[in-house]
Amino acid sequence: MEPGTARIAVDLLGGDDAPAVVVDGALRAMRADPDLHLLLVGPAEVADELIAALDPAQRARITVRPVRVAVGMADHPMAARAQSTVRAAVTAVHDGTADALVSAGATGATVTAAVLGLGRWPEIRQPALVATLPAVAGPVVLLDVGGSLEPRPATLARHAVLGAAYAAVAHSIAAPRVGLLSVGTEAGKGDRVRRATDPLLAVEPLPGGARYVGLVEGYDVTLGARVDVVVTDGFTGNVLLKAIEGAYAMAGGPPAEGGAPRAAALLGVAGTVVVCHGSARADDVASGIALAAHLWRRRAIDLVSALLDAATNRTDRSTDTEVRTS
Amino acid sequence: MEPGTARIAVDLLGGDDAPAVVVDGALRAMRADPDLHLLLVGPAEVADELIAALDPAQRARITVRPVRVAVGMADHPMAARAQSTVRAAVTAVHDGTADALVSAGATGATVTAAVLGLGRWPEIRQPALVATLPAVAGPVVLLDVGGSLEPRPATLARHAVLGAAYAAVAHSIAAPRVGLLSVGTEAGKGDRVRRATDPLLAVEPLPGGARYVGLVEGYDVTLGARVDVVVTDGFTGNVLLKAIEGAYAMAGGPPAEGGAPRAAALLGVAGTVVVCHGSARADDVASGIALAAHLWRRRAIDLVSALLDAATNRTDRSTDTEVRTS
Repeated sequence: MEPGTARIAVDLLGGDDAPAVVVDGALRAMRADPDLHLLLVGPAEVADELIAALDPAQRARITVRPVRVAVGMADHPMAARAQSTVRAAVTAVHDGTADALVSAGATGATVTAAVLGLGRWPEIRQPALVATLPAVAGPVVLLDVGGSLEPRPATLARHAVLGAAYAAVAHSIAAPRVGLLSVGTEAGKGDRVRRATDPLLAVEPLPGGARYVGLVEGYDVTLGARVDVVVTDGFTGNVLLKAIEGAYAMAGGPPAEGGAPRAAALLGVAGTVVVCHGSARADDVASGIALAAHLWRRRAIDLVSALLDAATNRTDRSTDTEVRTS
Repeated sequence: MEPGTARIAVDLLGGDDAPAVVVDGALRAMRADPDLHLLLVGPAEVADELIAALDPAQRARITVRPVRVAVGMADHPMAARAQSTVRAAVTAVHDGTADALVSAGATGATVTAAVLGLGRWPEIRQPALVATLPAVAGPVVLLDVGGSLEPRPATLARHAVLGAAYAAVAHSIAAPRVGLLSVGTEAGKGDRVRRATDPLLAVEPLPGGARYVGLVEGYDVTLGARVDVVVTDGFTGNVLLKAIEGAYAMAGGPPAEGGAPRAAALLGVAGTVVVCHGSARADDVASGIALAAHLWRRRAIDLVSALLDAATNRTDRSTDTEVRTS
């Protein structure tokens, strides 16, 4: 674990089994990371329950941003109430009260709240959700896993830049190999979007010393031997990730080296945002909080943004990785 | 195993590791199934090698259709030479010399050869490749896994009919539950094609007592608890299947109950056609041959065609499952 305080806003009402699994996950994260501070965003009584389970020293690392359930909202579904908590968590990141936020609420609502509250990077039309699979040969970065369901080829090419930068910054992968997911590896394999994107990627300047290796297949997402970054549309990435998760559940749990990711990072907005999926368990929420802290400590989002600027301006600024004030 | 002779044409040159793995797979299939007859389609010397490994009684169940490598073709890549063997195998099914064919050659070439040589069913615009995953809760039929990369909503709806019929006929699933793969289960989740297909499926008459259960997710493909038939486009199905295969390889092999399919059946052409993927091992080829024999013994393709006719004519012929002469 990198040193340094990380202040993470946690959406207490996000997720199918919120608030119970979120409280449990937050407790695990607090115990695992002595430099972690949490900003609990949600009903005061839920925050109080979590605080009651901590010792006094740990309590000093907790802040609460109460979100009152509006009159008449108490009967609304959890999902509707959670939208106000995720918005409040975004505000906390925007106003600097928190360094990053984690939500297991509806991904679409979180992405929308983040875009509206934090702003998109100027080069980004559609932010991408990026997940990392721990394959035997090393981490495999997969994007998009849900943000852009029907990206244009230019968006996929932009996501390749984001993925390469993320692999270099978040996972310290030197000279990442970037592939475009398709139904075969020979040039020309795939649907129209893939056939149009492949030649774009062949000439796209990629940051971090990354290089485009061409089309890759489903195997490469799970085995990771051929590629470090796999680019796909959010529809395919989302169903792929859930099918892999199901396969590991079928196989009696993920292998010692490997498995399915438990959280995804949002790339393309000016702030550190991590989403867990709706059916997240406490361990998943704890992993999401740990990922948010890791990304913040590395200033990963700002560095990815700087690498993207350098790549899209096509100037040689690849060593200019100072923090962007966005 | 069902009783009855099954005469399966085997493309000796199809597959990345042909002819070695095809010969090996064919030998395994011969030993496992005493009523299996094979028509070996390919170079005579490859067929001779296979025959030499059999005892005299087994040799009586082998026929050879030699395909000479044309002058100047010997230096061509295996894939180019295999196209003439898969076409010869299709011809053998068309002229009644074989009951079904199996190829591990390029899927696109096999589908094209089958469409040209056997003919599409009249209701079918795009044939579908259907794979069956052995989930804990029972088999899960997934289609398409490579035939139609960019289907229209009407094609996906037609594939739902094919999948329901196949589940009923090939796997004896009573009243199959049919789902449309998407990124969430709530109505409205997904890209444009999914959003347009969902309402079509809600009113589509499905055969075999099948019913449409709505949108399903990646988990449902591997776990199978919610659904028996999963409908998707060929791009998503193909990458999904390969990612699942990779996940089981990562997990040290498929679970006792479960795993990835080793072969896929082509639905929509007038004949029994099974494809293995290019990287098929001998066991996969043997499984493909066993699947072809199973489908033939059940007259599955003709029964699926009859159920499709009944569903698309929207007349109550659901009990009329006599063999169609196509």
